[in-house]
Amino acid sequence: MSSETLEPKVTKVTTLSSADARWVELQRIDWEDQTGKPRIWEVAARKTRGSSGIDAVAIAPILLHPSRPDSTLIVLQYRPPVAAVCVEFPAGLIDQGETPEDAAIRELKEETGYEGKVLSISPTIVSDPGMTTANMQLVVMEVSLKEGDPEPQQKLDDGEFIERVVVPLDGLHDKLVQYQKDGYAVDARLYHWAAGLEFARRRK
Amino acid sequence: MSSETLEPKVTKVTTLSSADARWVELQRIDWEDQTGKPRIWEVAARKTRGSSGIDAVAIAPILLHPSRPDSTLIVLQYRPPVAAVCVEFPAGLIDQGETPEDAAIRELKEETGYEGKVLSISPTIVSDPGMTTANMQLVVMEVSLKEGDPEPQQKLDDGEFIERVVVPLDGLHDKLVQYQKDGYAVDARLYHWAAGLEFARRRK
Repeated sequence: MSSETLEPKVTKVTTLSSADARWVELQRIDWEDQTGKPRIWEVAARKTRGSSGIDAVAIAPILLHPSRPDSTLIVLQYRPPVAAVCVEFPAGLIDQGETPEDAAIRELKEETGYEGKVLSISPTIVSDPGMTTANMQLVVMEVSLKEGDPEPQQKLDDGEFIERVVVPLDGLHDKLVQYQKDGYAVDARLYHWAAGLEFARRRK
Repeated sequence: MSSETLEPKVTKVTTLSSADARWVELQRIDWEDQTGKPRIWEVAARKTRGSSGIDAVAIAPILLHPSRPDSTLIVLQYRPPVAAVCVEFPAGLIDQGETPEDAAIRELKEETGYEGKVLSISPTIVSDPGMTTANMQLVVMEVSLKEGDPEPQQKLDDGEFIERVVVPLDGLHDKLVQYQKDGYAVDARLYHWAAGLEFARRRK
């Protein structure tokens, strides 16, 4: 790890034209509703979607260890769009020519150092369908650890600052609530997964 | 319900300038990273965020009935950004001056007809923090039904076409997978909630 000494910060926010943007653009969608009436919708889209047709994957890692409670891995990183350190599942955009499974294995290793096997892969799901075209798949991966295994090294790109945290599954929901109280921004998808888990746990 | 006879459809997609957009804009964020290096991020933001500071709420309704399995309510509606009928929790933007709780009670009633009480409200969570500023809260609401209660009337706005479906909690995950196979687009947050629930159920 490099010696992190500065707090990242947003210095300026300005309106951007779609023509000048490299990663994201605004689109006007003309559509006809159920009565045949012509209508308009405004939407943001990534310019980077590749041949897989899927923008991104997130990974729900399940860490199994002989003497520790079943856990997951979350990552903390500064996200300029919300001007805060964000708490998320490991995730990333799918590279050109890559399958979602390959992207999940690669991203888990890069962001956390852990290697795992794919247990299940979700259908294609849409991240915020009232506002964007963004889609993704959620990949559940099992990471089997042995007693005394050292914590693996992350393989971060230059300029990437990502902290990983192992969290027992039974404490995940409350940990996320605490992160938000402490000024972090919690990703909605991670939160929903934790809330579903917690709901099932309390219902028993 | 009105007589729905037509399939909604997208007729044209064109690039939109931020100046011409009413609901969404692109922003260029200038920021400094952990080494002090100046960097740029591109982001989409809603123009409609009100004084609550929160864009939207989603509702996880829990339906309790004397003789039926515990269930939730999902809604189906055409979403032009993904050119498909989307499967989501009931949800909506927060009106100016409205609290998230009030918005949840209002949206559940409008979109499904059901009335419930708020059980819990999530922290503020961010919907897609690599791409947008969008944030929301998830509100869990309990709807207590009695034997023989009639199905309530939706209170949809003119031009809103929303179908509601009652789904037993224990079958929710598999139902969402089936919807996607049948050509629907499943919302990532609803899917994550169902996947967390399912993971806990299978883990027992």
